Amino acid sequence: MVARARGRAADQLRPVEIEAGTMRHAEGSALITAGDTQVLCAASVEVGVPRWLRGTGQGWVTAEYGMLPRSTHTRSDREARQGRQSGRSQEIQRLIGRSLRAVIDLDALGEQTITVDCDVIQADGGTRTAAITGGWVALAMAIDWLQRGGALATDPLRTQVAAISVGITGGEALLDLDYTEDSQAEADFNVVQLGTGQLVEVQGTAERAPYSRRDLDRVLSLAEAGIGELLELQRAAIGEWRSSRR
Amino acid sequence: MVARARGRAADQLRPVEIEAGTMRHAEGSALITAGDTQVLCAASVEVGVPRWLRGTGQGWVTAEYGMLPRSTHTRSDREARQGRQSGRSQEIQRLIGRSLRAVIDLDALGEQTITVDCDVIQADGGTRTAAITGGWVALAMAIDWLQRGGALATDPLRTQVAAISVGITGGEALLDLDYTEDSQAEADFNVVQLGTGQLVEVQGTAERAPYSRRDLDRVLSLAEAGIGELLELQRAAIGEWRSSRR
Amino acid sequence: MVARARGRAADQLRPVEIEAGTMRHAEGSALITAGDTQVLCAASVEVGVPRWLRGTGQGWVTAEYGMLPRSTHTRSDREARQGRQSGRSQEIQRLIGRSLRAVIDLDALGEQTITVDCDVIQADGGTRTAAITGGWVALAMAIDWLQRGGALATDPLRTQVAAISVGITGGEALLDLDYTEDSQAEADFNVVQLGTGQLVEVQGTAERAPYSRRDLDRVLSLAEAGIGELLELQRAAIGEWRSSRR
Amino acid sequence: MVARARGRAADQLRPVEIEAGTMRHAEGSALITAGDTQVLCAASVEVGVPRWLRGTGQGWVTAEYGMLPRSTHTRSDREARQGRQSGRSQEIQRLIGRSLRAVIDLDALGEQTITVDCDVIQADGGTRTAAITGGWVALAMAIDWLQRGGALATDPLRTQVAAISVGITGGEALLDLDYTEDSQAEADFNVVQLGTGQLVEVQGTAERAPYSRRDLDRVLSLAEAGIGELLELQRAAIGEWRSSRR
Amino acid sequence: MVARARGRAADQLRPVEIEAGTMRHAEGSALITAGDTQVLCAASVEVGVPRWLRGTGQGWVTAEYGMLPRSTHTRSDREARQGRQSGRSQEIQRLIGRSLRAVIDLDALGEQTITVDCDVIQADGGTRTAAITGGWVALAMAIDWLQRGGALATDPLRTQVAAISVGITGGEALLDLDYTEDSQAEADFNVVQLGTGQLVEVQGTAERAPYSRRDLDRVLSLAEAGIGELLELQRAAIGEWRSSRR
Amino acid sequence: MVARARGRAADQLRPVEIEAGTMRHAEGSALITAGDTQVLCAASVEVGVPRWLRGTGQGWVTAEYGMLPRSTHTRSDREARQGRQSGRSQEIQRLIGRSLRAVIDLDALGEQTITVDCDVIQADGGTRTAAITGGWVALAMAIDWLQRGGALATDPLRTQVAAISVGITGGEALLDLDYTEDSQAEADFNVVQLGTGQLVEVQGTAERAPYSRRDLDRVLSLAEAGIGELLELQRAAIGEWRSSRR
Repeated sequence: MVARARGRAADQLRPVEIEAGTMRHAEGSALITAGDTQVLCAASVEVGVPRWLRGTGQGWVTAEYGMLPRSTHTRSDREARQGRQSGRSQEIQRLIGRSLRAVIDLDALGEQTITVDCDVIQADGGTRTAAITGGWVALAMAIDWLQRGGALATDPLRTQVAAISVGITGGEALLDLDYTEDSQAEADFNVVQLGTGQLVEVQGTAERAPYSRRDLDRVLSLAEAGIGELLELQRAAIGEWRSSRR
Repeated sequence: MVARARGRAADQLRPVEIEAGTMRHAEGSALITAGDTQVLCAASVEVGVPRWLRGTGQGWVTAEYGMLPRSTHTRSDREARQGRQSGRSQEIQRLIGRSLRAVIDLDALGEQTITVDCDVIQADGGTRTAAITGGWVALAMAIDWLQRGGALATDPLRTQVAAISVGITGGEALLDLDYTEDSQAEADFNVVQLGTGQLVEVQGTAERAPYSRRDLDRVLSLAEAGIGELLELQRAAIGEWRSSRR
Repeated sequence: MVARARGRAADQLRPVEIEAGTMRHAEGSALITAGDTQVLCAASVEVGVPRWLRGTGQGWVTAEYGMLPRSTHTRSDREARQGRQSGRSQEIQRLIGRSLRAVIDLDALGEQTITVDCDVIQADGGTRTAAITGGWVALAMAIDWLQRGGALATDPLRTQVAAISVGITGGEALLDLDYTEDSQAEADFNVVQLGTGQLVEVQGTAERAPYSRRDLDRVLSLAEAGIGELLELQRAAIGEWRSSRR
Repeated sequence: MVARARGRAADQLRPVEIEAGTMRHAEGSALITAGDTQVLCAASVEVGVPRWLRGTGQGWVTAEYGMLPRSTHTRSDREARQGRQSGRSQEIQRLIGRSLRAVIDLDALGEQTITVDCDVIQADGGTRTAAITGGWVALAMAIDWLQRGGALATDPLRTQVAAISVGITGGEALLDLDYTEDSQAEADFNVVQLGTGQLVEVQGTAERAPYSRRDLDRVLSLAEAGIGELLELQRAAIGEWRSSRR
Repeated sequence: MVARARGRAADQLRPVEIEAGTMRHAEGSALITAGDTQVLCAASVEVGVPRWLRGTGQGWVTAEYGMLPRSTHTRSDREARQGRQSGRSQEIQRLIGRSLRAVIDLDALGEQTITVDCDVIQADGGTRTAAITGGWVALAMAIDWLQRGGALATDPLRTQVAAISVGITGGEALLDLDYTEDSQAEADFNVVQLGTGQLVEVQGTAERAPYSRRDLDRVLSLAEAGIGELLELQRAAIGEWRSSRR
Repeated sequence: MVARARGRAADQLRPVEIEAGTMRHAEGSALITAGDTQVLCAASVEVGVPRWLRGTGQGWVTAEYGMLPRSTHTRSDREARQGRQSGRSQEIQRLIGRSLRAVIDLDALGEQTITVDCDVIQADGGTRTAAITGGWVALAMAIDWLQRGGALATDPLRTQVAAISVGITGGEALLDLDYTEDSQAEADFNVVQLGTGQLVEVQGTAERAPYSRRDLDRVLSLAEAGIGELLELQRAAIGEWRSSRR
């Protein structure tokens, strides 16, 4: 059995906290902390949709992802100075966007765009899955904001969505990898699941060694349990924020 | 049961052809045709490795992906004019690169870089999986070229790798989606598998509707059978090319 | 007398083939092969014109040029990754565009744009002239497509246009240089001529040694004969494609 | 007399907090809060200097500045997506860098570079001056880190540096403008001062109305008092962090 | 006392010449020479305003700044080739734009944009202040052109604006630094003042040593006198141009 | 017969002036005026050569071309702001570079690079040919500078090079087109010729109507005479500059 930092069990999440409403200006916001990983999620509502949706009556939800230059162990170059987002950043923000759209009825949203900015304040593995889990809280708040403002006839929010990583190390499946574990894993997986238990995205990559279908099955069981805990934390964060607003 | 173009069965590949050695200058090359999809794969060998590998004795395999502007139904802007590769192109070439590296012993390759260019001549769905399948043939030829030139002590090529897409439409799993099927699928999957049957990459995305673990299981079975056929076609292409060189 | 590869005479073209209609999606397309040079030309019709022509009733014909990274002897960087087209690519596509516009009555075309993409699959000298010669075939097919669709009142295609290179080597004029000849030539010329025999573009560059007006005269005679053959091949390609469509 | 939010006096700072050591990976870090403005400052030490200093024995201190897209009242475009830093961002980071270099003996630092990243988490006016004030704390911690590691023979930190804005509104000078005040000011000033009381940078801009030398004089007096308070808060933050490390 | 080139006194400007109307196409233009510094200023009038002003009835004045690659002692890279303006260029053109807007009643200008291009033909220190001083002449001519054309109901030009640099060297304040002086100064200042004597912009930067409020005071006195001379030269240049047009 | 502005004959140049040594910092410089066209040419010598020539012992001569934004009738966007040189600028600077290299023995130059910057101060047609003619003067001065400094064993300057445009309008050949003539010409030609009378570059483009070989012949005769005059003016400019230096 693989030994994990701070005596963590193979199927144990790192300590996770989600604080809703941390940003003053955004229509929705959440700071999600998972171990040493911290991601600040901000949902912004804008009237109008991208060109290809104009006139369809449909809304749009999209995401952007970035890392502060010194969120990482050694400083990374600022993407704004390099003149472009890295392929990795683009890939991650496309994943976050797809995941969040899976819980929204875009027709019910109408021709409005919600952009969820996910900025990594500190990175220690699992930033993209934390961004999805925290991003949902910001998104739900923004929907709430629209409803309070009377801008929505029906509720476009269908369910919750949360995500977690799993790795295979020494043949064993480990839930919620930190950076050190991630860089040693044979294969690593990101699983995105709805409040209904259905899957939205599964990405499994053999980094050091290929994996079998049985491995994948064990990974999905582990992820499912972890995501169950995250869904509960999301509900608690939204609940607490609602109470505080009264 | 979903009706497919040209009476194709749910578990049936489109007609696939792989022609090895189609490019005069490249160290390895293959033109892969899958239905109306055509991808030209060219492997180029260069001495030296990227900065972060210098002095490690390890080699590198990477891929680049592009589409001719009119490979698609309506013309797309030329990425060179837009000043950058799209997020989609970058995501795809990262997948191809990872998949091809999974079959290479980078230590045995030594400080050389093999770049596999995958250029889509005509697109009708499944270009990224075709690029992996055809890219392996180009890569194997380049390894062969290095061996003939005496530049390798041991064979760095461990096994084959091939890939296929699967979609879920009307609740049914369909192998090897064409463009029309892909744009109507509820969820679509790309599966990359080794000659040994092990998995290298599984990507499953809910485009219109989430999916269950049972769905994923059916998808993987379908993919496995399809990839088996592709592995055979790869071997045949390499075999034919070897004969023709004598 | 300079000895040429495969016993070619000074006034002899390389074997040229033009195949019309090779691309499924484009309104017009041609694959032109000249020795080891291969250029894929695709004509795309779009409604509307660039800003500066809006409301004039005039149409537009433009061209773009690119090379697959491994079309060349050693791999070139992908322009989409470098973030810009090279000066050479831009210069070439401006030449192709001008040459093709010379045979089109833009008023008769009306406010539509035809973009001719010329992508070099394999390069062995003469890619820009091949692109013009093949590009005309794609353009003529696109005009034909517009006429069949009833989008044109009168025929905007005035005549044919084709192009060839000539070099001066050891004081001797050689028709249709391949890459090796081109890199050794003292001066090289690109000549673009109409079906009527009139000139559209002459570009003569002293690479290694200046040239005289008499040299230029000999070059133009050689080019004229070569272009005559190309015009015939264009007509044959269009004719064959028309037959095959019946 | 101009009425200010929350009954603030003309010569009164907003509530300021400086927390040192908030980032796990950086050699120095501070979160500075001034009213609703929050800037996260991270100092990163790297061996080596920019090209123009190589071999001189001299070190370098530089700064970068960015804003999270939703730090502002309405969402701003992400600079990494626009492909470049705005002129405003570049101007601000040049100012921060100059200000921090004013307190460092670059010869004593030796050929090392300290980059201070200042990222605005929330913006309500005064982000550039907060970045200088907080940036000094991160910088001092990084110098401390170098000293503890034995990488410095002598202490390169000469003194403190802090900054504040002042505005002229209705003819009256107001210390430490918030966003609303800033957008209504007739002229606004940024003053950067050393622990010794000397000036490092004065920037005074007439936004709505020109100002007199007497106005400038009053501004400098106001700034001096405010900066005095900030210098004290910097010392307290460093002190607290030192205690907590024991 | 510091010795200056050509026996210049501490409070003495270099020989300054302003020639109005040097460019044939521009609505206003001036070549300003200050010692060996030469800046060509061209004002262009265009109908319409930037997006954020449309429909407000207000006009806009903006500036752009560039240096010819060999205006400097050693050749600088051409910004157009580097793909972006430097931070320095952007900072300078923002300063010029702000300074020129300070003398224009934008409501009286109406929805028109005046762009003042300031291109450095030869650089020997003080290019940004020369650009402001010369830019005003070009701007005033463009306003004159608009008035002659009947495009303005009232005169939007409120007063003059001019600028000069001052440095502190060896504790002494020196007016109008040349390049050598500038690179040795302990602190340097740019002062922008109206025809009314009021200040528009003061920028004081400690390059080598901090400065005191008393230093700043002496600097402003020196600047005021120098700017007085420049305002006179501006009036003379405009006067001469008006005479020559009759 | 076509009537030309100011009663110019078909074979008559506009008034041309070449002033050598106008720039203080450059190793060679010339301001060439042709009618209302003004181009400032500056030659800069740098030690070292581009990567592909390192270690060959060969030198390099290259050119860059730009236009001041308001050199033209209506203002053009600044290329530095657009983030790239236009295709036109790149094409022109490649032509200037090739033309100037035609008169230099790169082996005799040794591993040094001469960059000739050609910046259009005012444009009225013929800027590229003026740049070549004036660029030669700047280049010759830079060679002279190298010789005086003892950096050259033998003289790398083989001969002169100058260039002129010719147009065909109403079937008639006209020498040295101004902007208005150029925009109405049926075909236009740029001819670059050596001091020896030999041709370096001929570019003939049918803008409105194709041309015949006989037309081209007349064009070349006209160009030859005009270039003869320019070669004389170049010699005079160099001569005058040499005298003034004594």
